[in-house]
Amino acid sequence: MDAQQFREFGKAAIDLMADYVENIRDHDVLPSVEPGYLINALPQDAPEHPEAWQDILKDFNQTIMPGITHWQSPQFHAFYPTGSSYASIVGNILCDGLSVIGLSWLSSPACTELEVLTLNWLGKLLGLPEEFLHCSSGPGGGIIQGSASEATLVALLAAKDKTVRRITKSDPTLDEDYIKPKLVAYTSDQCNSSVEKGGLLASMKMRLLKTDSDGRLRGETLKNAFEEDISQGLIPCCVIANLGTTGTCAFDPLYELGPVCNEADVWLHVDAAYAGAAFLCPEYRHLMRGIELSDSIDVNAHKWMPVTFDCSAMWLKNGYDLVRAFNVQRIYLDDIKTENKIPDYRHWQIPLGRRFRALKLWTAMRIYGAEGLRKHVRDQITLAQYFAKLVRSDDRFLVEPEQSMGLVCFRLKEGDIVTKKLLENITEKKKIYMVAGSYNGRYMIRFVICSRLTKKEDVDFAWTHIKDEANLLCSDKVHTKAQLPAINQIVAREICEKSK
Amino acid sequence: MDAQQFREFGKAAIDLMADYVENIRDHDVLPSVEPGYLINALPQDAPEHPEAWQDILKDFNQTIMPGITHWQSPQFHAFYPTGSSYASIVGNILCDGLSVIGLSWLSSPACTELEVLTLNWLGKLLGLPEEFLHCSSGPGGGIIQGSASEATLVALLAAKDKTVRRITKSDPTLDEDYIKPKLVAYTSDQCNSSVEKGGLLASMKMRLLKTDSDGRLRGETLKNAFEEDISQGLIPCCVIANLGTTGTCAFDPLYELGPVCNEADVWLHVDAAYAGAAFLCPEYRHLMRGIELSDSIDVNAHKWMPVTFDCSAMWLKNGYDLVRAFNVQRIYLDDIKTENKIPDYRHWQIPLGRRFRALKLWTAMRIYGAEGLRKHVRDQITLAQYFAKLVRSDDRFLVEPEQSMGLVCFRLKEGDIVTKKLLENITEKKKIYMVAGSYNGRYMIRFVICSRLTKKEDVDFAWTHIKDEANLLCSDKVHTKAQLPAINQIVAREICEKSK
Repeated sequence: MDAQQFREFGKAAIDLMADYVENIRDHDVLPSVEPGYLINALPQDAPEHPEAWQDILKDFNQTIMPGITHWQSPQFHAFYPTGSSYASIVGNILCDGLSVIGLSWLSSPACTELEVLTLNWLGKLLGLPEEFLHCSSGPGGGIIQGSASEATLVALLAAKDKTVRRITKSDPTLDEDYIKPKLVAYTSDQCNSSVEKGGLLASMKMRLLKTDSDGRLRGETLKNAFEEDISQGLIPCCVIANLGTTGTCAFDPLYELGPVCNEADVWLHVDAAYAGAAFLCPEYRHLMRGIELSDSIDVNAHKWMPVTFDCSAMWLKNGYDLVRAFNVQRIYLDDIKTENKIPDYRHWQIPLGRRFRALKLWTAMRIYGAEGLRKHVRDQITLAQYFAKLVRSDDRFLVEPEQSMGLVCFRLKEGDIVTKKLLENITEKKKIYMVAGSYNGRYMIRFVICSRLTKKEDVDFAWTHIKDEANLLCSDKVHTKAQLPAINQIVAREICEKSK
Repeated sequence: MDAQQFREFGKAAIDLMADYVENIRDHDVLPSVEPGYLINALPQDAPEHPEAWQDILKDFNQTIMPGITHWQSPQFHAFYPTGSSYASIVGNILCDGLSVIGLSWLSSPACTELEVLTLNWLGKLLGLPEEFLHCSSGPGGGIIQGSASEATLVALLAAKDKTVRRITKSDPTLDEDYIKPKLVAYTSDQCNSSVEKGGLLASMKMRLLKTDSDGRLRGETLKNAFEEDISQGLIPCCVIANLGTTGTCAFDPLYELGPVCNEADVWLHVDAAYAGAAFLCPEYRHLMRGIELSDSIDVNAHKWMPVTFDCSAMWLKNGYDLVRAFNVQRIYLDDIKTENKIPDYRHWQIPLGRRFRALKLWTAMRIYGAEGLRKHVRDQITLAQYFAKLVRSDDRFLVEPEQSMGLVCFRLKEGDIVTKKLLENITEKKKIYMVAGSYNGRYMIRFVICSRLTKKEDVDFAWTHIKDEANLLCSDKVHTKAQLPAINQIVAREICEKSK
């Protein structure tokens, strides 16, 4: 493929994707394919000879597209959003066109420096304390990780290394093989599965502590857990607090957890993967009160900001904690010395190589401007509030807990089994996509404003569809109130077990 | 930014990148900027209001571009290549345009299935044993990881989990806290830094075993290490073999390491990040003899294949080993049951989210065809052989060890200090980019055919430049033979220490 063909192929792809977004409402949000559909539809072997790009786009339209769940569709209300924007798609074209690897400053100075700069930009817009920024006088700064999972793992590993160093320093007779199995990490029972997985990956015990009735991990609970473990000879090492839990978008009170962590010399990592974007708007910053007591914070710019996956923005109070934990220097990585201000990001992350991801963050921030980013967050919250109002207007339904950010949790008052059936029926129709959650042992449906394209009409569409399905279901006599209590317990246990 | 503006911005970016590649020889391969150049050149805060895309491209050209080290330049001969191609840049536009997250089959069936399919395609083209493919009757299959570092970490963690399960099963009185600190991983002293870092990240002791004079880890050495450790109460857990070491592109004999690992129930992971692409060509497959004895293998399609970073292809003999190690099921991830043949890739990797990376692999394989991919590898080896011949024609130089794949290691016979000085002078001129290595304690320069654009004329250009610099250097009387022996020792120690 020569440059001329690339121009044609690339521009055709641009048009195809613009058309896709413009007409995205024409697709059912969920695809109508069976497992194996694509594997069976395409050749089992790579072509021997080069093929024409026109044939690739034809296959893309005819075979790939029917198997897509449309995350950018205004009818996608599942999980949390995955961000995207025209601006950052183009940013990524520049990234791929250059195809540089920013493993050190010299390996492409602009790659490292634009990341330093844009993470400062974003950190300031979020109102982070200055010590988390590269432009502070201290060793803090931001980095783009691939995902919140990676950020959690990085924090756990840095905390482990730091704790081992602290303990062996105070008692040189202890070695790391003795210390490591005693280290404990803590999070809440509302944490994302990736946090729990982080414990598995980091080989650290991870305790899921009980939250209060609002889904928040409280300082007292954490303190008691520390004391309990210390009395058993264990060593508290790291706490992962949640700002915006996956289940109900609850916010752990950092102003309670922070002092407990600081006093016990325990690393406090803040997972604000989704809801962190809300701090773009000053009116929500009270929800991160105490952030200055944390050691690291992660906000997925690729979730609730219009930045295409992957772009997980992580800030550290002390970058050296990572460098000490991860540095393995080699002669072929020898580099000219840079000023302290410019990090060698390869020591701040798991892989050695790194893409020029700052470009897509940079293009998105410039095309939207700070006001555009704030508007995006506020508009989505307004839409969620509107949906909650619609649900409340129907007395068969209950919104519980209170709508938080772009998330509305709701259920049928009639009980778990009908609510579950309702979700199943809706999913089968493929018009809108939501997923289940649980709140205080009850089955509920999570409705999230995900797409940047979602408008009031789309929310109306979703609500009408939900109501229609509820009408159909309530006329079905199989589900009677009499059956509910017993079934409820089974379902509740099932949910509970699956949540583990 | 609306769809129309996206069409304009996107197409301008396509043209810009096509122009960039077409005129890439106009740039010095290394940039002429000082640390901080970009941070100081751009505004310290994000813009408050939206900006025009034309201004972004202007800044890209004026401030980003001067700070780029051109990895795709034909004059880039450092490290190993990072792959890119027009075809896979477009594949990634489609990926970004859809912006789906393939965390489960339902979350976008095509995303999972195209990955299954293309990893089968590639596995077959590389001549991997059938049991590594999804289309076999067994539990094997391929997955795209972000990097070889990630693949190594995944293998180490799966090996750790499997070993702990095996031992606690045979002796239920032992618990994992007792077992884990005793686990040992092994690789060679020629391994990439990312392998050593993998040991750090996985909290596993990593022994770098001595290689033979050809840089290969031998079976006997490994066997002795196992015995030594077992006699000290340690537990061999995982071996990372190198097919194509970073320093000299040496190939560990899997047919020796495999039986030793299999007998001791130790996981054998094969890091073929760069050189694995050579197995596209049957004439090089003898270098992976014994591959059927391994548990996992990783080949960076984004290194020596024309696939844009990141696309690290990893195959496992038993995917369940990963699922058992990484599975943390949650209710919001509940999915319809898929046939066994279709993996839930989130359990095969570190993060929860995953991009539709198979698209860029698919477009590249179709645009090149199998014959195009083989031609790419063979052409690059031919160019390396040509460069080695040029170096040998000048009796001031020595090629040592023998050229391997796209890598030629060479040095000035006069000694380490002059060779080092030569590389420094060349790097300062910024015309070609190479990095240092060491071989049997001697300082040497690594010259790699990296760019897909490199032609014979580019190799001539590089060699002429190297010769010219050597002429300048040899006329400089500061470096006399008399000085060399003492300095050599210092340099050798320095290299050695930095390699640790």
